Parts: sequence; C-alpha cells; structure tokens
Amino acid sequence: MAPGSQRSPLAPVAFPRLPEIAGVRLGVAESGARYRGRPDLLVAVLDPGTAIAGCFTISKTRSAPVDWDKANLARGRARAMLVNAGNANAFTGARGVQTVASTVEALSRLLGCPKEEIFVASTGVIGEPLDEALINAVLAPTVEKASSEGWSAAAAAIMTTDTFPKAATASAEIDGHQVSINGIAKGSGMIAPDMATMLAFLFTDASLPAPVLQNLLTRSVDRSFNAITVDGDTSTSDTILLAATQKAGVALPGLNDAADPRLRSFIRALDQVTLDLALQVVRDGEGAEKLIAITVTGAEDDRAARKIALAIGNSPLVKTAVAGSDANWGRIVMAVGKSGEAADRDKLQIAIGGLSVAKNGMRDPDYDEAALTPHMQGREIDIAVDVGMGRGRATVWTCDLTHRYIDINGSYRS
Amino acid sequence: MAPGSQRSPLAPVAFPRLPEIAGVRLGVAESGARYRGRPDLLVAVLDPGTAIAGCFTISKTRSAPVDWDKANLARGRARAMLVNAGNANAFTGARGVQTVASTVEALSRLLGCPKEEIFVASTGVIGEPLDEALINAVLAPTVEKASSEGWSAAAAAIMTTDTFPKAATASAEIDGHQVSINGIAKGSGMIAPDMATMLAFLFTDASLPAPVLQNLLTRSVDRSFNAITVDGDTSTSDTILLAATQKAGVALPGLNDAADPRLRSFIRALDQVTLDLALQVVRDGEGAEKLIAITVTGAEDDRAARKIALAIGNSPLVKTAVAGSDANWGRIVMAVGKSGEAADRDKLQIAIGGLSVAKNGMRDPDYDEAALTPHMQGREIDIAVDVGMGRGRATVWTCDLTHRYIDINGSYRS
Repeated sequence: MAPGSQRSPLAPVAFPRLPEIAGVRLGVAESGARYRGRPDLLVAVLDPGTAIAGCFTISKTRSAPVDWDKANLARGRARAMLVNAGNANAFTGARGVQTVASTVEALSRLLGCPKEEIFVASTGVIGEPLDEALINAVLAPTVEKASSEGWSAAAAAIMTTDTFPKAATASAEIDGHQVSINGIAKGSGMIAPDMATMLAFLFTDASLPAPVLQNLLTRSVDRSFNAITVDGDTSTSDTILLAATQKAGVALPGLNDAADPRLRSFIRALDQVTLDLALQVVRDGEGAEKLIAITVTGAEDDRAARKIALAIGNSPLVKTAVAGSDANWGRIVMAVGKSGEAADRDKLQIAIGGLSVAKNGMRDPDYDEAALTPHMQGREIDIAVDVGMGRGRATVWTCDLTHRYIDINGSYRS
Repeated sequence: MAPGSQRSPLAPVAFPRLPEIAGVRLGVAESGARYRGRPDLLVAVLDPGTAIAGCFTISKTRSAPVDWDKANLARGRARAMLVNAGNANAFTGARGVQTVASTVEALSRLLGCPKEEIFVASTGVIGEPLDEALINAVLAPTVEKASSEGWSAAAAAIMTTDTFPKAATASAEIDGHQVSINGIAKGSGMIAPDMATMLAFLFTDASLPAPVLQNLLTRSVDRSFNAITVDGDTSTSDTILLAATQKAGVALPGLNDAADPRLRSFIRALDQVTLDLALQVVRDGEGAEKLIAITVTGAEDDRAARKIALAIGNSPLVKTAVAGSDANWGRIVMAVGKSGEAADRDKLQIAIGGLSVAKNGMRDPDYDEAALTPHMQGREIDIAVDVGMGRGRATVWTCDLTHRYIDINGSYRS
C-alpha cells in the first residue's frame, strides 16, 4: 500500500448496505498483476438486454481501455464490466491495445456475447505493460462464482491508494415500479495517474433505453464527479459506467426524453448516488483532513460560476490556508481574480461558515476573525462567494492541501 | 518574517554589482505600515524626460495601485516610482483609491511634477487599509537622501516573503552608444497574494521613446516573467515597470519599431535582465529546493507549447515527484493530456536530464531509471517533451512542491 494509508479522517463511519440488483452478478479475483494478497480484479456480469451509458476522461493521452469503451458505447448494450487495479494500461502503445483485445476476447467467449459488449477499465501505474495472461487465467472461476451480493468485495477490489471502499445506493420509482441504483467508486486524487484514477460503476434494474440513460448520466456526472477536484490533475483513465438491466417494470412507451416527468424520482436517486460517491472521493483525497464546499453565486452564468469555484478549489494557497485553519479570505479574492471570469470587484461578497467576511469589495466592517475560528477548525469548511454580476451559480467540492499530500506523492515509488 | 525564511538553497551566491544609471536616484525608508526595524518603502526618483512602459496582472480583482498605473501609462512619462512592501492595498475599495491619490499627490508636490507621472506599486497583505499618513510622513527625507547608488537597499526594501534580494544588470549598445539596464524584483510565490506578489522595476539610460519601450517590454516579459510559475496563482498586484531616462546617446530618428536592427543588442540585454530576475523569483519559490525547466516542442504552435508546458509546471503531482527525486514520467504524460492541447499520444517523447524516457507513446525500451538518479537528485531538473504535432515550442520554469510550501502557506498569519 501507499504511504499514509491509514483511513481518511473524513471517511464515512461504515460501508452502506446495498440491495441486490436483478441481472447483476459480481466476482473478484487476485490476478497478481501488481498487488499481492488482495483481490485486484472485478468482473460485473450483466444479464442479456442490459443497456449501458458512460462518461470518460477528456485527457488527450487517454488509456487503451478508455478508447475501447468509447468506441463501443454507441451500441448501448453491455454484458460485462472488467476492471483491474494496480496497472492503468495507459501509455502502453500497441501493447496496451493488444491487452484490451485479448482480455475482452477471453471474457466474451466465456459469456457467449459479442466482444463489443464487454466494457473495461484499468487504474494504476502508467506506462507499464499489463500482462493479459494474468487476467485471462482467472476469468473463468471469477465468472463462475460471481454472485448478486459481492458489493463490498467489489468496491475493495478496485481500490488503489484509496483508504476506504466507496459505495452508495438509492431507490426510486418509475411509473409505479420500484427500482434501485447501486454504485461503487474508487479514487483519492482527482487524479493521480500513478494510482488514483477516478472510476465509478453504477447499476440499476430500471427499464430505460440507452440514449435516455446516457442523457441522465451525463447530466448527473456534471453536477457531481465534474464538480469535485483534489489537485486539478486529470487522469488518463477516468471512467464512469451506468448499466440498466431492464428487470424492474417494463420499458415505457414514449420515454425518450430525460425531461419526462416520469423520470423525476429516478433522476433524484441517481443524483444522490453520484454526489455521494463523488464526495467520498474528495473525502479520500490524498492527505485530506477537511472537506471544502465552495458555492459561487452572482456569476454571468453557471459555467462562469463553475470556473470561478474551481479556481478557488484548485488554488494551493486557498487549500493550504484551510489546512492551517486560517480564514485567509485574501486568497479567495485572488482566486476569483485569476479565474478570468467577470466579477465586480467592488460588489464582491465572501462568507465563510455562514459569517460575512467581505462585502462591497472590502473587508466587512463587522467581520470578527475570532468568531470564525470554530468553523475553520472543523472538518467541513463552507465558502460562499457572490461576484455581483448575474444569476449564474455553481457548487464545487475539494479538500485541503496538507503535509500528507506531499508525503504520499513525493515519496519514491516503491 | 514568515516561517521558513532561511535563504533559499537555490539563491545566487552574491548580490550583483549594479552600475549607476544616469537620471535615476533611489531612496528607502521605514514607514512602519507593517514591518518594524526594516525599510519597507522605495522611492525611485527619475529625471524629467524619462519614458515609461509597464506590464500588469490580468487579475479581475487587481489592486488600486495597478488601476492607477494602467490609467496613466499611455502618457508614457514618469518622474518617480513609489513602492511599499507589507500591504498590497488590494481589495480595499474606495479607501484604497484614496490612499493612492494621497501618496501620489504628496510625492508629485515634492517633485514638482504632474501626479500622473508618479507610478505606484504595493505588495503584501490583502484587504487591510493602508494608512497614507505613514507613507507621506517619510517621503520628503527619502527623496532628499535618494542617491544613484542604493540598488542593494532598494532590492531589500521591496521584499516580503523573499529570502534574498533580487537584482540583475546588463549593458548594450545602441547606434554606437553604450547603455545599461538595471533591474530589481521581488516575489517568492508566482504568487501568494498574501505577501508574495511579483514586482519588478527596470531602469535604463537608453534614449528610447515610450511606445518602442512598451513593445520591447511586453515582448521580453512574455519570454520571462510570463514563463514562470510557482503555484499557478495570480496576484492582484503583479507590476513590471521599465523607465528609460534618455541620458545615453540621443533619440534616433525613425526609431519607432521594435524590429529595428539597431535595437538588437538592447533587446538581448533586456531579455537577459528579465529572464535573470524571473528565474531568481522561481529560485526563491516558496519552499523551493529544485529549479525545473520544462521545454515543450512539436506543439501546434508556440501558444499551445506554452500551455502544455504550464500544465506540466503547475501539476502538483509533477512538482511533488520532483521534490521526491522521482523520475515519475507517467505524471508528465498525464499533464500533457490534461492541457487540452493537441498531442499525438503515439508519438509522444519525453527526456529528463537529456536521457530518453519515453518515445513513440511508450516507455523507451532502453530507459534505465537508475541512470537518471544523479540528475533527479540535483538542484536543476530538465524536462523535455515533444508532442509530435508541429513546430510550436516554449520553455517554462517552475520549482518543486515541498513540505516547506505547506509550512509557509498553511501556518496561521501571525
């Protein structure tokens, strides 16, 4: 394990209880590709007829598995997800493409499905060839023993520098039918390409066609996984997949629009699961000791608000100040300024922990730094900024920048 | 002084010897606005007829002094620069504007010049009112004792979290006349708005009109101060001024174009001074123990190359790896990918310390990590990346990210 691998102080108290999802079976195995003595491979077997949606890294140096998934997403059907931890199979050239082809071929033969219905994800070290033989050797027994109950083992098998396994669940109702959504995720830098890519796998028994599923996922990811940052770095491998097994209820006629009111409950549940998982990733941010929520209002539009919030959330000066329990709002002013988005310097308002710190482009005359101390010393820091231009708003989550971040990332790979 | 204020291990051995510049006199004083027992105020008195050029922060929350300078730059004439350290007079609203007006008025009366010919710069804490009375009280004696020799004292008076005073000099020849360029600078984060704004003041006796001077400065700053980064944060107050006293030689007829071959020697000298000062700022980067030069070639154009180089230079994962003497080239691949600029993943080449690490989108088969160890353990790290697209190139300088950065920025303001 990596240095500093004690459980994050921001981790949830316990692993949640996840229900079975009809049509989903999970199996894990020890491939030995990198780790010893722990499962590092997950196969999620999906019943025939399962629809799939996905969101991927926008990196220009994305991995071979991401290329494969993107190429096959438009088919909208999946029979399995195959995930390995410890080796990202990224920047591995033709060798990496061959690894994907070989493992996908082996698993599709076992399941008797087109290989385009196998989705893959890899996370771990970059630039090391990944030996397909190690994976192929354990596929048959893993599929064989896959069960509908293995959520906790599945969440653990995909971990790299994570200090706790991540899962979330919610239920919803579509046209009178009860449905469930389960999700597991890994990631503990927003992304350290070495070992800490962000992966999330979501499963539902809902009867939803792939295009609708894709709309819902893209929208939900935008408000959750795309609204978190640990270090501003983007992985070569970030992958989020959502599989719908169509086992609950029946496909609704005319349901081809994410704005359909019959989807309201499902959207709420999906947002709950994605945000829960995304915040768990931040809570496991490398070296994190505080969770920071940054809400920007009054921007020209929502996009501008997001950019300003990310400028604050990615500023090492803001993050080190929070680590030191310092309500250093001058650094927030700086970050707003560097975002490049329109802000009315003379209307800028800043509140921390609900207390007004600055208004009208100046320190609030009633600001009392001592009154802020209890909030700054807590585990969850709340920063609100109004930039006085319009109605755009966004919330972004990040964590503080501590000595343990340096320890984790500055130590020689062992 | 800030914690961790021991002299940077990357500091030059000694302060350089700077010649006098005809038409420039320097005076320093203790205003007491923030520090005790050290000069914190610089007045550079310029002879009548001096031309001025300037470059400023692009922050949307820029300080009152920056607003003042930008408004008066087009006149192209200056009689003084007035600089204080310890209080940035930023985010101080109408009160800040009044401080500038009052100090400028007082100094212009002493010098008998229009107040628009006084240029100001402030660096230090944000959001604290700056009491003009403290500055105005010491102006008369400071102007009185100003001399042509005080370069070392001037460089020291403008320091905040800097661990050493910064200066550089070079000489050039314009149409047979010998001219000098002196510069002083401060800054030790590429910018901590708290205390570490980047300021630079350049002086030459050359006879150059203000519009030419501005072209030359803009171009030179782009290759020096705009090519360095410590933490990716942009100050509210960054200011670079270049004053030309017109004392050496005479204004050349028809010299209105920066491309004029008669300016070649001057341009070379100016680039030397600005790059020297910019690298001194990086060498004094907060917590810096290694200087990192990143050269990107093969980009679509120079702008794309710069953006890729900055993505590498601002990546906390790359910077912590260098701090740990780890040749973690996977993180360089990641940073290239996240830059958003075109790169041919399958042609990507990376060399560190002149040794090939990766080529053709894969680890170089001949790569020997042990051979790189002596370079990685040195003080100056050289990263070269070719992205295989075109002819664009850029070099950017940064420093590593160490525990001392967290110490300096995460400790409570005292």
